[in-house]
Amino acid sequence: MIKIGIVAPGRKLTLEAKEAVEEIATASGLPIEIVVHPQCFLDHGHFAGPDEARLEAFLDFANDPGIDAIWFARGGYGAARLLAGLPSMLASCAFDKVYLGYSDAGFLLAALSRLGCRYCAHGPLVADVLRTDGAATITRALGFLSRTDASGLDPNLGAIANLAFNLTILRTLLGTDWLPLNDRPLGQSVLWLEDVAEYAYATDRNMFQLANNEWFKRCAGVRLGRFSLVPENDVAFPITSEQAVAQWCTKAGVPIIGTGDIGHDADNKIVPFGLLSDWHQAGLIP
Amino acid sequence: MIKIGIVAPGRKLTLEAKEAVEEIATASGLPIEIVVHPQCFLDHGHFAGPDEARLEAFLDFANDPGIDAIWFARGGYGAARLLAGLPSMLASCAFDKVYLGYSDAGFLLAALSRLGCRYCAHGPLVADVLRTDGAATITRALGFLSRTDASGLDPNLGAIANLAFNLTILRTLLGTDWLPLNDRPLGQSVLWLEDVAEYAYATDRNMFQLANNEWFKRCAGVRLGRFSLVPENDVAFPITSEQAVAQWCTKAGVPIIGTGDIGHDADNKIVPFGLLSDWHQAGLIP
Repeated sequence: MIKIGIVAPGRKLTLEAKEAVEEIATASGLPIEIVVHPQCFLDHGHFAGPDEARLEAFLDFANDPGIDAIWFARGGYGAARLLAGLPSMLASCAFDKVYLGYSDAGFLLAALSRLGCRYCAHGPLVADVLRTDGAATITRALGFLSRTDASGLDPNLGAIANLAFNLTILRTLLGTDWLPLNDRPLGQSVLWLEDVAEYAYATDRNMFQLANNEWFKRCAGVRLGRFSLVPENDVAFPITSEQAVAQWCTKAGVPIIGTGDIGHDADNKIVPFGLLSDWHQAGLIP
Repeated sequence: MIKIGIVAPGRKLTLEAKEAVEEIATASGLPIEIVVHPQCFLDHGHFAGPDEARLEAFLDFANDPGIDAIWFARGGYGAARLLAGLPSMLASCAFDKVYLGYSDAGFLLAALSRLGCRYCAHGPLVADVLRTDGAATITRALGFLSRTDASGLDPNLGAIANLAFNLTILRTLLGTDWLPLNDRPLGQSVLWLEDVAEYAYATDRNMFQLANNEWFKRCAGVRLGRFSLVPENDVAFPITSEQAVAQWCTKAGVPIIGTGDIGHDADNKIVPFGLLSDWHQAGLIP
């Protein structure tokens, strides 16, 4: 039996999403037990409770040896405010857990990875159950978390190390000490990027920042996920968001090696950080 | 006679703004000549011409020994795309000029400052003439650029080095090599910050990035400019943008030492980078 703990480092979870996921889990017959931390339903304006409550809930589950995987409830904004509380607070069992999420949860994936947690993965959030076709998304996530089904993984992971981020979250980590290690110890990483609801000029600006950063220049390549719901500006930007990513990658000398099936949508596939072979060896992927 | 060259590294200038500024300049009787580069009116979607044209226009004027000051036409987005073309292209006379602008032009102020241009100043753009009370703004800017009137300067510059930025532009420079030098050779700088039209959560996120950055931690303090036109989100953020700046400054150990009379508005005062005494000694401020 795999025990999955759900916490909400950013926005709060709705009861509707919780119940829908529990229903799918029960119907799946998978060897899983889901525990939802009561913190997920706290309401502190933008956040699922004050910083202290969100950090405490995360540590409750991350430091519980009985929990195998932490699944982040929802994005929004809020995880960044918890990072400073992590370094001295993680118990040894926290380093062997699987962590799954994306968007704002990328702050935690980056920091946990940097601190030595080896099994962070970019993939669906609990709240994705409410998307159209969200049940299939959740079924893939549960297959992954239960270690029974690898079909939720992106098929293009390859034999190289991978990292995946929302571009806005990643650019916010530049110039801080919270970026995951890149070229060591696992070798240069392929970086998977996606974003949502950002103006094309804002994506261009974010890519300027990335392309002028040494960490990024050490990446082996970029996989281009979806840049969706790009708002129209009062004046048209001369290139698309995807072209902006490509132009800046060229300037930085980091090749675009293909697309990636990731994005803020129900199709969002799972990209485990690091080498897939390490996940296999640890028995985390069948 | 002080010759002021206007170029547009971001969005294009309108003929209306050009004529309004020329009218104010003529009526002022100040010993100035204004030259507007034809590039200012190029139209390339979001930009005042393609990157090559904007860079060439900037270098035309920066490298012209007959021009004393470069005044940036307008913000938007675009200056970041010119930076890579600067390092090998600046003539010696470019290092002695005054550069004035803010918002997106902050990319150029930062890079020029980093490359050794000592007289960069955060202050009005040409296009500010179109704001309500914009004529007074432009009169202050012309008094500064003509080296005849210091009343456009913020009164709180003090005897310490200063740097001023739009927060969104500054955070985009973090983790790159384009940040101006901070604690050397002029000593720790006071950092003036302002922003416009950013959600409170986005300002909080930008401040996370700043507060986790070593360059920022070496600042002597922060002066809080205006954070204006903050959009309402679908869920209220529990603190204001100003509170977010203050919280993260506290976490980073950088004190807020007061307010700053800067912002995206007609009241926007001038903050010369570096030490005011250097500007006085060079005869650039009366």
